[in-house]
This record gives sequence, C-alpha cells and structure tokens, in this order.
Amino acid sequence: MHALIVGAAGMVGRKLTDRIVRGAPLQGKAVDHLSLVDVVAPETPEGYSGTTDCLQADLSEAGTAEKLIAARPDVIFHLAAIVSGEAEKDFEKGYRINLDGSRALFEAIRHANLADGYRPRVVFASSIAVVGAPLPYPIPDEFHATPLTSYGTQKAICELLLSDYSRHGFFDGIGIRLPTICIRPGKPNAAASGFFSNILREPLVGQEAVLPVPETIRHWHTSPRSAVGFMLHAADIDLDEVGPRRNLSMPGVSATVGEQIEALRRVAGQKAVALIRREPDAMITKMCESWAAGFDATRARQLGFTSEDSFDAIIQAHIEDELEGAA
Amino acid sequence: MHALIVGAAGMVGRKLTDRIVRGAPLQGKAVDHLSLVDVVAPETPEGYSGTTDCLQADLSEAGTAEKLIAARPDVIFHLAAIVSGEAEKDFEKGYRINLDGSRALFEAIRHANLADGYRPRVVFASSIAVVGAPLPYPIPDEFHATPLTSYGTQKAICELLLSDYSRHGFFDGIGIRLPTICIRPGKPNAAASGFFSNILREPLVGQEAVLPVPETIRHWHTSPRSAVGFMLHAADIDLDEVGPRRNLSMPGVSATVGEQIEALRRVAGQKAVALIRREPDAMITKMCESWAAGFDATRARQLGFTSEDSFDAIIQAHIEDELEGAA
Repeated sequence: MHALIVGAAGMVGRKLTDRIVRGAPLQGKAVDHLSLVDVVAPETPEGYSGTTDCLQADLSEAGTAEKLIAARPDVIFHLAAIVSGEAEKDFEKGYRINLDGSRALFEAIRHANLADGYRPRVVFASSIAVVGAPLPYPIPDEFHATPLTSYGTQKAICELLLSDYSRHGFFDGIGIRLPTICIRPGKPNAAASGFFSNILREPLVGQEAVLPVPETIRHWHTSPRSAVGFMLHAADIDLDEVGPRRNLSMPGVSATVGEQIEALRRVAGQKAVALIRREPDAMITKMCESWAAGFDATRARQLGFTSEDSFDAIIQAHIEDELEGAA
Repeated sequence: MHALIVGAAGMVGRKLTDRIVRGAPLQGKAVDHLSLVDVVAPETPEGYSGTTDCLQADLSEAGTAEKLIAARPDVIFHLAAIVSGEAEKDFEKGYRINLDGSRALFEAIRHANLADGYRPRVVFASSIAVVGAPLPYPIPDEFHATPLTSYGTQKAICELLLSDYSRHGFFDGIGIRLPTICIRPGKPNAAASGFFSNILREPLVGQEAVLPVPETIRHWHTSPRSAVGFMLHAADIDLDEVGPRRNLSMPGVSATVGEQIEALRRVAGQKAVALIRREPDAMITKMCESWAAGFDATRARQLGFTSEDSFDAIIQAHIEDELEGAA
C-alpha cells in the first residue's frame, strides 16, 4: 500500500503522517510506502519501517502533479491549500494554488487513467467555508454552497471537479468538509478563528489568552485527532455506499464560546478560566457571526464518520495527544 | 449603451439580439452598439439603427476574451456553451469551452478592472443541470448543486466564479438558471429533451412527433420569450437587492407530459394531439426521471423575474412568436 500526502507539512498532514507511521492501515493493508509532499520540505518521519519519499514541490507548477503520481500511489490525500486570509488577499495566488493546483492533480490522474487504467482513491480536504451566511442552524446536508470567501469558492469548485472526475471513473474521490479544528496545537496565530483554540490551549499550560468575541458566538469544531480519523475512514470507505454525492459535511461539536469555557472549567478548573482576557474586537465578532454554527452531518454519521460528542472530550483529546495526558 | 452577446448565434442569443434590435432598452438606455460573437459567425441583424460588430471567435482561445472587451461593453450576456450531450462525450472540449472559456472572460474583465476600473454587468446563462437526482419537488432555492453531468458541473463552477468575481468588485455578475426551453423553434433535434418541444411544435403545423416517455414525466419549462425576458431583466436589476447570492433559479411551468398534451388539445384540438406517436424509449425515460420536476424560484419571483403561468400560455407564446399568430 502506497500513500501520497500532498500538503504533508501542514498540521493535519503531519498528524496523518504520524498515524500512518505508527501503523494505521489503509483499506486493511499496511502502508509500506509513504510519499510526503509540500511547498516546504516535509520532515522524514522517524521510526517508520517502510519507504519514505519526501519532496518539496508546488502542485500548481507544470509537471509537478505528473511527478507525484509517477509511482502510482494507491491512496492520495490532497490537503494542500493556502489559507482563507491569504487566498482572500492574494486573489491570483489563491486560484493558482487552491484551484489550479488541485485541477492539475486531477488532470494528471485522468491522463494516467486513460493511459493505463490507474484509478487511485483521492481524499480531498474541503472546508465548512463552502457555505456562506445567512445560514440555518444546524445546516442540513442538502444546503447550497454559496461561499463568501475566495478560499471557500476554490474549495467548492474542487468539490464539483472531484465529483465529476469520480463519476467519469478517472479516480475514486471523496471530499471531507472539515469543521474548524480545535484545539490547534502550536503557538497562537494570526488567523481570525485562532482564538477558538487559543482560549483553551494557552490556559491549559498556564498562559494568558485573548478572547475577542462575546461568549454567545456559536461555531463548529472537531479535534485534530478526529480530523485525521476522517481522512483514514475516507480512504477506507465503500464509495458505492456513498453514491454520487461525494462531498460530505463531517460531524463535529457545535458549541458557544461560553460552552467552550465551561468545558475548560470542568477539565482544568477556574485557575485556567481566569487566564482568559476579554478584548472585544468588532471586526472579528462580525466575521464569526457569519460562520457556520453547526451542521447536521447526517450522511457522514450514517457512513461511519465520528467526532467527539462534547467539548470536554475535545479538550481531553488535546491533553492526551499534546500534553502527555497532564493538564 | 453597448451590449456584447457571447453565444449570439444560439437560439436564445438570436432571440435576445432580435429583442434588442427591435428597441428593448438596457438599464433604461437605448442600445446604440451591439457586439455579436459566436463560434459560428452571427448574422448581422437587419433594420438596426445602431452600430453592429459581428465576430466569429472562440472564447477559450488565448486573446479572444481581451479582444471582446476591448471596447468596454456596458452589459455582457454570456450565453456561450457546448451542450450537455457533447460536454459529456468530449470531456476536454466541455471543460475548455464551458469552464475555461468563461474563466478567460472573467479574467479579462478582472484585468481591465484593475487597469482602468472597468466594471460591466455580466449576465451568465446557467442551467437547471446544476442540480442532480435525487431531487425534491419543488426544489427550494437553497438546495445544493450536485450535478450529474459534466455540463452541469461546468455551469455550477462558473456560478461560483461569477459570485466570487462579483464579490471582489471585478464585475457585476448575475447567473440565470434557465429551465428547459419549450417550445424550441426549428427542427426536431437529437437532444434527449427534444421531445418536450417536438410533441407540441410539430403537431401545431400538422406534422407527426414521437413521444418516447410516459405521460407521467414531470419537468420544468419556460418559453423562449420568457428566457429572453430573464436576460433583459437580469441586465437591469439592482444587484444590491440581489445580494451576494448571485445565481438564481428562474420561474417556469412545472408540467407532466400529460398536462402538456392536454394544453395542446385545448389550444389546437384533438387533430393536433392525434399526431403524437408513442414510441417508448427506456433510456430517455430513465434520464428524464432524474431531471428537475420544478423549482420554487421564490427569490427570482420576488426579484421580478416572470414566466408563463400555464402550458397553454407557453403554446400561445410559440404561436404568436413563430407562427404569426395562427396554429
């Protein structure tokens, strides 16, 4: 079993790599060949018994996609993207990386399919950014994609391409609409949504964190662990059971910021909660109000995708996976 | 007022040209300059007092889009596409014409916008093919686009691009999801949906027509006259009122084939109905069963788009517009 991870140096890519290196099978088979690709050189994983190729490459450059599939990987995880803020500011770069890069990959596979019948599983990381306000709560599986960012537009277009290429039999694609990932490990970053993680991650290690929005803001979350679980399940799932609608809103936890804070209090006590400093920011609040508060995710649940069922469990996953079990 | 019609040689393009030539204003102003473009040379309209440019050109060829907007038309009607059957059979041609051609036009406008602030109204002809079975009846405005053809995929992608380019202010775009147009003038053609028109148009002039499906098949129709009306209204409408969701399912008439035939009987009598010959075709029937039976079109109606309210009216429009008032 040969797996290719495009976007391997990102947070989900690194965690997915780690799970595979620690023995997670794909389609019931051990992964003995792992190809890792990103625009920054992915690190060679330690302690892996199989073959690893690490490549620094940009999918949107001519010839890259063909090179990536030359060894005909069985499963391709396509996680590569520039993030929402950057795609919004740099219109051309966003379309080049997030749309043309994906299309180049899909086209390279199509040509290989026509040449020799190659037909890999393609797992595409999409996003809840494909929907745009005004939004119902919860958002049903059949709600339309009317994104309000170029990033969401590019993801929605890739979803459509993925379905069409799959319908034609060029590859077996499945798109995974990831909730906001919480608790993101690492340092606080400049993303507008960063506070959802900051207000939990920082207090858990005795650091202050800034909360720029009211506690009534409701949003849609899943843990990094569940996000990797979605990817692995998407690689395994029987696509006949999924049918032609290949892009699935994943399950998650819908919670208000207030509910996040109460979960933190239950898990780590008032001393942690006291480290949250309120600095209201009208612009961030306005952005958050336009985001998805939660999805039904009925189809994904029926198809066996699972997430945490409470914010307590999301915090617990972070403590186990990032803090060696101790908050 | 300078209008550009891309896809001017097609059925809707010719009828739109005709309405403009006969004096239909755009945004309250007389159209004194009309540019007609298609892959087959559009005919120069007779009796037009303004300036006409007719150009045979393929939007998907490098440099064409820039040439089309060099004179900075105020309103651009983008109707050019290869049809569903051809886009399905010739995957590369479908994407080149229906996706890359549209994107080339949008990109040319964006570059002109950045260069000199050019910001035209762009009216894009989309299609009910953006939705795919299983479908509710009626289909709500917020139903997702999960097309089951490459043509529908390409139209859905262009809708997303149109919204995003409009949101960035590169142009003022609006997408019009056309119902199946009935009664199509001209000769019977090979399209699977052709019978919806054939069974009315041919008997109205004393000719036989073949009905390949059961009378229970329900579908979504509008007249050529209403389709042109949609385009003209889309050129005029206040886009602030439309908001960021720029792609609208148009109103139409939902009717079973049986209801179509009863309307024919009321308008033209049993002698016309007797000319319909039943030749059941399982493949065409299966295709029709997966098509949209009808849309709510609530938003479009609220925004002033109007269609016929019965099949009798659709037949009457054909008699007036194509048969000089006499069936």
